[in-house]
Amino acid sequence: MRFTVDTKEMNEAISVVAKAMPAHSSLPILEGIYIYAGANTLFLKCSDLSLQIETEIPAIVDEEGSAVLPGKLCADLIRRFTGPNITFETDNNSLKLCSGRVKSSLQIIPADEYPEMVRVKDEFSAEISQSILKSMIKQTVFSVSMDESKPILGGVCLKFTEDKQLIMVALDGFRLAMRTEKIENCTGEKQVIIPYRTLMEISNILSSDDEKIRLVFSSTHIKLEIGMTRLISRLLDGEYVNYNSILPKNFTTKVSVSVEELKNSAERALLMARESKSNMIRFNFEGDMLHITANSEKGSINDEIEINLVGKDIEIAFNAKYILDVMKVLEDESIFMNMNNSVTPCVIVPTEGERYYYMILPVRLFNS
Amino acid sequence: MRFTVDTKEMNEAISVVAKAMPAHSSLPILEGIYIYAGANTLFLKCSDLSLQIETEIPAIVDEEGSAVLPGKLCADLIRRFTGPNITFETDNNSLKLCSGRVKSSLQIIPADEYPEMVRVKDEFSAEISQSILKSMIKQTVFSVSMDESKPILGGVCLKFTEDKQLIMVALDGFRLAMRTEKIENCTGEKQVIIPYRTLMEISNILSSDDEKIRLVFSSTHIKLEIGMTRLISRLLDGEYVNYNSILPKNFTTKVSVSVEELKNSAERALLMARESKSNMIRFNFEGDMLHITANSEKGSINDEIEINLVGKDIEIAFNAKYILDVMKVLEDESIFMNMNNSVTPCVIVPTEGERYYYMILPVRLFNS
Repeated sequence: MRFTVDTKEMNEAISVVAKAMPAHSSLPILEGIYIYAGANTLFLKCSDLSLQIETEIPAIVDEEGSAVLPGKLCADLIRRFTGPNITFETDNNSLKLCSGRVKSSLQIIPADEYPEMVRVKDEFSAEISQSILKSMIKQTVFSVSMDESKPILGGVCLKFTEDKQLIMVALDGFRLAMRTEKIENCTGEKQVIIPYRTLMEISNILSSDDEKIRLVFSSTHIKLEIGMTRLISRLLDGEYVNYNSILPKNFTTKVSVSVEELKNSAERALLMARESKSNMIRFNFEGDMLHITANSEKGSINDEIEINLVGKDIEIAFNAKYILDVMKVLEDESIFMNMNNSVTPCVIVPTEGERYYYMILPVRLFNS
Repeated sequence: MRFTVDTKEMNEAISVVAKAMPAHSSLPILEGIYIYAGANTLFLKCSDLSLQIETEIPAIVDEEGSAVLPGKLCADLIRRFTGPNITFETDNNSLKLCSGRVKSSLQIIPADEYPEMVRVKDEFSAEISQSILKSMIKQTVFSVSMDESKPILGGVCLKFTEDKQLIMVALDGFRLAMRTEKIENCTGEKQVIIPYRTLMEISNILSSDDEKIRLVFSSTHIKLEIGMTRLISRLLDGEYVNYNSILPKNFTTKVSVSVEELKNSAERALLMARESKSNMIRFNFEGDMLHITANSEKGSINDEIEINLVGKDIEIAFNAKYILDVMKVLEDESIFMNMNNSVTPCVIVPTEGERYYYMILPVRLFNS
């Protein structure tokens, strides 16, 4: 194998694929970067057997071939190369790198030992704009459960419906996040669960423009292509919670409140609440005012926000973090908080439309 | 006590004094911020008994008084206040804070329990420009020893000489850093050792302009004032190493080399060298070329830099980190590396003048 690539393009390609490279693996070859040089192209990939990211860049290929490079060392080294391009050449069990006056030799592993990931059969597919998918991920993924005893909740459930909608849901037993958007060229109905880490990496490589991308699913995997980059990941195996049955529909209190003000107040109250290690903040919706209070042995805080309330006054308490997590991902100016009483969930929805739906369980108030 | 301050000024003042506030202390009151309101001024201070930082800001004081506030909570909370000003008012054992619609109450500790630091008697003083002192700290402090069994080497030695020079020296047994500058209005000769942490905090509050500041010393402490901020710190107690006797004077090899190129090469070589956990890189000064090599079980790297050599060729090895640390703090384009053989120290000096002097012990080459 012998090829030459542009240093900057090589660095960008490595930083893309290295997202899937585990820092430590029981299979040491996975700590490497697989490369294949052929037909004026250098192909690169990394995988942890659950997630695989591949990309390719132009190359002047004098002799085809493949190898697995020591991942972290190779990435760190090439990032510090100052020459405009790099020539790679195999020499027995090592790969020689030349860039300007720098010559390096890296121990390589034969490429045929690198585990192959399954080919993803196109059993189902749908199209969505990159910016919308990015926003849907951001607005749901924080509610994924980190409890390893419930692996199925460690992913986001994507439901493609008959009426061309994509519904994304994450829940952890204390809260639920749901986002809905129209999709296009959807080949039917489907429900899949995508692991948290895969969604974070998808979000990283998605751009913020409206260009469409195609999500392709087999019964076990998802595949998507953005430009020259392809991401393949396992889906989580199992039945997702039937969340529809737990979504409250009718409310006796309906409040519109500013997202920015609620975020600032919850942030300040959380500082006090976390001193008592409970994170509990108390909301008193009273007429046109929301009073937010938190106490700890170090002191107390009282805050007020003007609201619009329809229905009856209500006192309710939450883990401040759950309220904050929702406020941080919303772009709207104001929202509706819908409630019934201090022991049933609060539901947060847009003032117009049905793009998102957040449900947060309250903390029980003992003195009320 | 009752006073009102500007929110922004209060946040800036807290961030200045909190640098001296320990995160955890066996004396819990030190985890607080001492405040004293009087004469249209709010005075703030924090101390860990070794280092104390004080400052003051304008305040509308309706009732004088003092208190110790819970440090971290208070700092975090006030940083998130959005009102333009804050009113503080004592109420028994607590302090009420009001800013816009936010009302908070913080448990306080009586201020008379806060330990007093000694008054620093003006036994010796000298003047130096802020930017020069900042540069002297940066160019020496990295060589301080982190070995707790040698506490005296955990500080930088400042020597004020009869001929109005300040010599700063740090050494750790493997390397030495020395910086020399002219000073003004110096009241005599003096040698003191300032702790690492104190110098880092002094550097943080120094500006990059040429305004002079006055360093004041008692036999046990240093004091300096920058604007409204005053810093007081203990000096390290004991005799510093007599480093003059170990500085080599004559050299058989004298090399001028580019700082930028040496930095880049050492950085790349260190990546390879650290894989073998030795950090050892080999320098081969040969005619007008410096060959830098490093090896590990994962591979090797060879680099070349054009040099100007006077004297005999030499092969020598260093801990790459020690070379890099020096290259990172220098602003010159090129330097002299002066050597005798592979087992005696290398000395790095400017191509003109005597502002700095770095000495680095080589690593022994077994195969040469």
